[in-house]
Amino acid sequence: MAKVLMKGNEAIGEAAIRAGCLNYFAYPITPQSEVAEYLARRMPEVGGVFLQGESEVAVGYMLFGAAGAGARVFTTSSSPGISLMSEAISYIAAAQCPAVFVNIVRGGPGLGGILPSQGDYFQATKGIGHGDCRLLVMAPASVQEAVEMVMTAFPLAEKYRNPVMVIGDGLIGQMMEPVEFPDHLKTEPSNKDDWASNGMEHRGSDSRNLVKSLFLDPVQLNDNNLQLKAKYDRMRAEEVRFEAYNTDGPYRLLIVSYGTMSRVCRTSIDMLKAEGIEVGMIRPQTLFPFPEKAVSDAADSPSCTHVISIEMSMGQMVEDVERSIQGRRPVSWYGKCGGEIPTPEEIIEVVKERIG
Amino acid sequence: MAKVLMKGNEAIGEAAIRAGCLNYFAYPITPQSEVAEYLARRMPEVGGVFLQGESEVAVGYMLFGAAGAGARVFTTSSSPGISLMSEAISYIAAAQCPAVFVNIVRGGPGLGGILPSQGDYFQATKGIGHGDCRLLVMAPASVQEAVEMVMTAFPLAEKYRNPVMVIGDGLIGQMMEPVEFPDHLKTEPSNKDDWASNGMEHRGSDSRNLVKSLFLDPVQLNDNNLQLKAKYDRMRAEEVRFEAYNTDGPYRLLIVSYGTMSRVCRTSIDMLKAEGIEVGMIRPQTLFPFPEKAVSDAADSPSCTHVISIEMSMGQMVEDVERSIQGRRPVSWYGKCGGEIPTPEEIIEVVKERIG
Amino acid sequence: MAKVLMKGNEAIGEAAIRAGCLNYFAYPITPQSEVAEYLARRMPEVGGVFLQGESEVAVGYMLFGAAGAGARVFTTSSSPGISLMSEAISYIAAAQCPAVFVNIVRGGPGLGGILPSQGDYFQATKGIGHGDCRLLVMAPASVQEAVEMVMTAFPLAEKYRNPVMVIGDGLIGQMMEPVEFPDHLKTEPSNKDDWASNGMEHRGSDSRNLVKSLFLDPVQLNDNNLQLKAKYDRMRAEEVRFEAYNTDGPYRLLIVSYGTMSRVCRTSIDMLKAEGIEVGMIRPQTLFPFPEKAVSDAADSPSCTHVISIEMSMGQMVEDVERSIQGRRPVSWYGKCGGEIPTPEEIIEVVKERIG
Amino acid sequence: MAKVLMKGNEAIGEAAIRAGCLNYFAYPITPQSEVAEYLARRMPEVGGVFLQGESEVAVGYMLFGAAGAGARVFTTSSSPGISLMSEAISYIAAAQCPAVFVNIVRGGPGLGGILPSQGDYFQATKGIGHGDCRLLVMAPASVQEAVEMVMTAFPLAEKYRNPVMVIGDGLIGQMMEPVEFPDHLKTEPSNKDDWASNGMEHRGSDSRNLVKSLFLDPVQLNDNNLQLKAKYDRMRAEEVRFEAYNTDGPYRLLIVSYGTMSRVCRTSIDMLKAEGIEVGMIRPQTLFPFPEKAVSDAADSPSCTHVISIEMSMGQMVEDVERSIQGRRPVSWYGKCGGEIPTPEEIIEVVKERIG
Repeated sequence: MAKVLMKGNEAIGEAAIRAGCLNYFAYPITPQSEVAEYLARRMPEVGGVFLQGESEVAVGYMLFGAAGAGARVFTTSSSPGISLMSEAISYIAAAQCPAVFVNIVRGGPGLGGILPSQGDYFQATKGIGHGDCRLLVMAPASVQEAVEMVMTAFPLAEKYRNPVMVIGDGLIGQMMEPVEFPDHLKTEPSNKDDWASNGMEHRGSDSRNLVKSLFLDPVQLNDNNLQLKAKYDRMRAEEVRFEAYNTDGPYRLLIVSYGTMSRVCRTSIDMLKAEGIEVGMIRPQTLFPFPEKAVSDAADSPSCTHVISIEMSMGQMVEDVERSIQGRRPVSWYGKCGGEIPTPEEIIEVVKERIG
Repeated sequence: MAKVLMKGNEAIGEAAIRAGCLNYFAYPITPQSEVAEYLARRMPEVGGVFLQGESEVAVGYMLFGAAGAGARVFTTSSSPGISLMSEAISYIAAAQCPAVFVNIVRGGPGLGGILPSQGDYFQATKGIGHGDCRLLVMAPASVQEAVEMVMTAFPLAEKYRNPVMVIGDGLIGQMMEPVEFPDHLKTEPSNKDDWASNGMEHRGSDSRNLVKSLFLDPVQLNDNNLQLKAKYDRMRAEEVRFEAYNTDGPYRLLIVSYGTMSRVCRTSIDMLKAEGIEVGMIRPQTLFPFPEKAVSDAADSPSCTHVISIEMSMGQMVEDVERSIQGRRPVSWYGKCGGEIPTPEEIIEVVKERIG
Repeated sequence: MAKVLMKGNEAIGEAAIRAGCLNYFAYPITPQSEVAEYLARRMPEVGGVFLQGESEVAVGYMLFGAAGAGARVFTTSSSPGISLMSEAISYIAAAQCPAVFVNIVRGGPGLGGILPSQGDYFQATKGIGHGDCRLLVMAPASVQEAVEMVMTAFPLAEKYRNPVMVIGDGLIGQMMEPVEFPDHLKTEPSNKDDWASNGMEHRGSDSRNLVKSLFLDPVQLNDNNLQLKAKYDRMRAEEVRFEAYNTDGPYRLLIVSYGTMSRVCRTSIDMLKAEGIEVGMIRPQTLFPFPEKAVSDAADSPSCTHVISIEMSMGQMVEDVERSIQGRRPVSWYGKCGGEIPTPEEIIEVVKERIG
Repeated sequence: MAKVLMKGNEAIGEAAIRAGCLNYFAYPITPQSEVAEYLARRMPEVGGVFLQGESEVAVGYMLFGAAGAGARVFTTSSSPGISLMSEAISYIAAAQCPAVFVNIVRGGPGLGGILPSQGDYFQATKGIGHGDCRLLVMAPASVQEAVEMVMTAFPLAEKYRNPVMVIGDGLIGQMMEPVEFPDHLKTEPSNKDDWASNGMEHRGSDSRNLVKSLFLDPVQLNDNNLQLKAKYDRMRAEEVRFEAYNTDGPYRLLIVSYGTMSRVCRTSIDMLKAEGIEVGMIRPQTLFPFPEKAVSDAADSPSCTHVISIEMSMGQMVEDVERSIQGRRPVSWYGKCGGEIPTPEEIIEVVKERIG
């Protein structure tokens, strides 16, 4: 298929359709409202549904209800909207239902601003809702990768029966890039009959599936949590994705950076190479599970004397980098937040300062 | 003052009043509804206000509104209710307003159960809302400590103009213990005129205070985030609180545990000591800032060969323990979740297994 | 087409579909929830939409939005739910949009009971919303008539660009009767392009239609009210519907009664005839416009000495009867309310008492 | 007490306080928001509560809850806001609780305009909510009378345990007039212990009062409706209030007009008298109960050949005038709606036209 030039937000909407998702619930918020605009037009064309909830709280429960009934479901929002969905996300994870969330992060906290940010790293990877629940989180660095990750998110959500989040920023959402769409996904979730509430007719049985997050018996609740933990451990084993850049030869410093920020870092690395300074980079494509081993191994490279987590946030991913490296290399953080994106020149300066 | 026998939830309500908080907004949820019941009666007696919001979302914004006007404000809730407040918490942090939250955690995720849990550790300490915001988080291990922490929470919230959370569990909330109340706090927030929206008459000036979380200019937003970061760094420097147990002599293993869970661990340590096995414990009283140095120092004790994070959650605090120890000792996790509390005997078995 | 045996509520749902209405918004409430259950299944079969709002307030505005865009829209509810829609009904009437409401009245006021009642006569015919707005109101006395009135309601709503209400009670909704459906309506609203907000593409012009209820200029608002008044006067001239029973010969007393109540009255009239006592009845099929002339003419019959309004309400329609008869005959009321339906025997006793 | 010059809306707020009402729940809407502004300041001064609900729907239920607990409660709103409260009004009437509503009517229907109107006559007097419920409705023609009616409304609401509405318009609300406040009301509702939910401690008994609107047993519901009907009949017997103007001598035409509109009519009558044309007027001060006998008697004056209902609405009160006169005189309507107020000259012209 030929490449088409598309805005990221529109490409994300199209990707969901090509992944076979015909149920989109959302509430508009800058900088991702174009997804809703696009799908308001496209969903009816493909026999799908776009329902604008009366708030993000409602959207969260529309997702839960439809997911629990076995439908492929999807929403897009931005930071404050995701906070409003956080109770529902915890419910969906607890009830082990698949659902895909796209968070086009805006500057925070609070209303913040509408420019790009990575301030929701912690929320996405650790504390999205109450209780022991986690999302599988992917972070694209281009419109093409956003498309691929959204299309991958649905089968992953169904494999794990767990919410999956694709976390981008306003640059991913707003910029136009040439994009090539993979083939439509053909598969139906294969195990839907085993758990979804509307599976009865296909199951040819009269046993009921109960989709719920309430387990008043502590043994059952602990058991549900052990199932969740087992799934998260399996994600750690099977789903880690990352990209290494300029790590084949020796490098004096390792950058860890993701999403839009990593594109700026790549430019800095190229510029530094021209000056004869080698810097490697690990770009996590999955934020949870975090590529701990990849970061650790790359830091262990004998020439590497320092590791920096470069973020459009005030020091969040750096904690996962620290945990990965376990003190074997000095780890520091550099970043800005709220729409100011560190420039290649700033990063070069920081790198030079770190390697003395 | 003599000790009185009180239920934890009631003592928490009384503590807020004695801290000079006359504005309580809440929505009922087990296992903390007794706070609302108590304050529904007590607040009018002291000229205060208890307003039940129509939802936790509303409560969050009642807190924001009143806090922005310079009032001392307070809510109590439990896990799903805190998730519903998470957008507002991010707004309050962004707007730099003081507010005190008590989370009597119940089993999660989702509706979960109503028995004690520590499943909200990550949410409280890392991802409570979107954007770069953090709460100062304290975790009591007794009703007496809950009273002290709630009374401390108000001046801390005002010192930092930041939300403070006291995180307990159903055992703290439901059990009766003898409690002695400190003297009433006398102080008014001294700097209210500088920032609160209703300070104009006292300021004797016609300059306006604007209380907001929206900063469309990225330079201003980044600047606001730098102020937040500076405050969180200052918390790390000034507010760390922890308790060490059985760490004076040599010990073969270090337990890190907090809240109700730490009381069980203490019993296990006493029982192990009777067997001649020495185990030390660091009990974080502040979860953020986490007592990294205390944990690290205690782990560095030459006799100590292993560190366990014992939690009523599926492996959350253990990440902060790992970060603190930076690979110098093996760190592992033990826990249960959802109302099943590990017994002293189970913990003893785990300790023995770890130290081989 | 052959007759089918159907429950009233289901027949009402089917009638809307056969009237070409593919947009049903509703919130469940006894005794009409079967309409929603029926249409939840049927609407997708015919390519229509059933959207359950988060409250009746929301449903009212879903109707307004879709009607303003030129869609044929429909809801069903029961007394308290209609009150919650009353603001929206006033908006829809003010903005001159077509919409069809079915009110399966339950005992009131307040939550009341779930048994049949006619307590909403005044609300439906006079004070449904604030401001000078009126509904065209029809009251069926059988399932068959309910079907016909619902199917008639849509073209009438479009003819007048005004809300139309079909008002029944739990007996109409719950009982099964044989029903024959008229042919599907073929017509599209012919004038939609002139006023609906989404008519632009068909109009082949770039002029905008504005659908609104706000007229800040008092001259414009007065003008809009004059248009409404002209429509209501035209309804009075063109849409009055009623049924006369036993009025061909002389009768000593005239009953005015509608809906389910009139069926009981008909039995009483038959029983009285067997005793040699002739009683006539006018059954308003439209409550607004009220059949003033028919009632007046029937009361003027020389043999008629008394008029009774027999209602399942505490004296509501009797006011319209009084206004119609203008003092030329004594008018009285008889009724019960809240689920107790006057029996034929009671009515016979009342009639005998009146005619002395 | 000396007269003070006050805006109507502020005088209404002060009147409620002097009537001993310390519980004001409201949501802002033009043209009555000044009541809320005034009481936001005044209520705390007198130890009262002003709570702004999150919507008028919520306000309605705040009133119900507090009234059911025996508190004197009060709200003010304008047309669309009253529609949103209509479900709650029906619940309050059904549960037989006292509550006072002020409706400063704006042009309708829908959003309409913000200028004076009398378009809510029907809603207030007949169809305010579903079911057989009615309000006692008073309509002031001056700020002074608004004060007196509001102060009277509370004891009347308590006498009948029924909602009372004072219905004005933007002119009453916005204009400044000299006003003299009656003495503070001293009385507490004397029968509160018999029915309110919080009366138990005063009753010295352990019997419970149940405040509810749900009566699933049709006999009980009918009985509750009979109690309501008996109260409404008693209102008709005891509470009718009206003012006659220029009815001592003979007059050729009778005007029926209320509120602000009647002040314009009075000017017309004075101007006509100067021309030698006598016109009488009955000004209903209670709209329900309507002064049927007064209107009827005045119309029966031998010289009177015509009756006009002059309204700032499109023909609403005229129906009650017709019912009162029962055909003995021709009755017609004149009016405008939406902010255009008929001028004295217009009315003179209409009068001359009618009397030929």
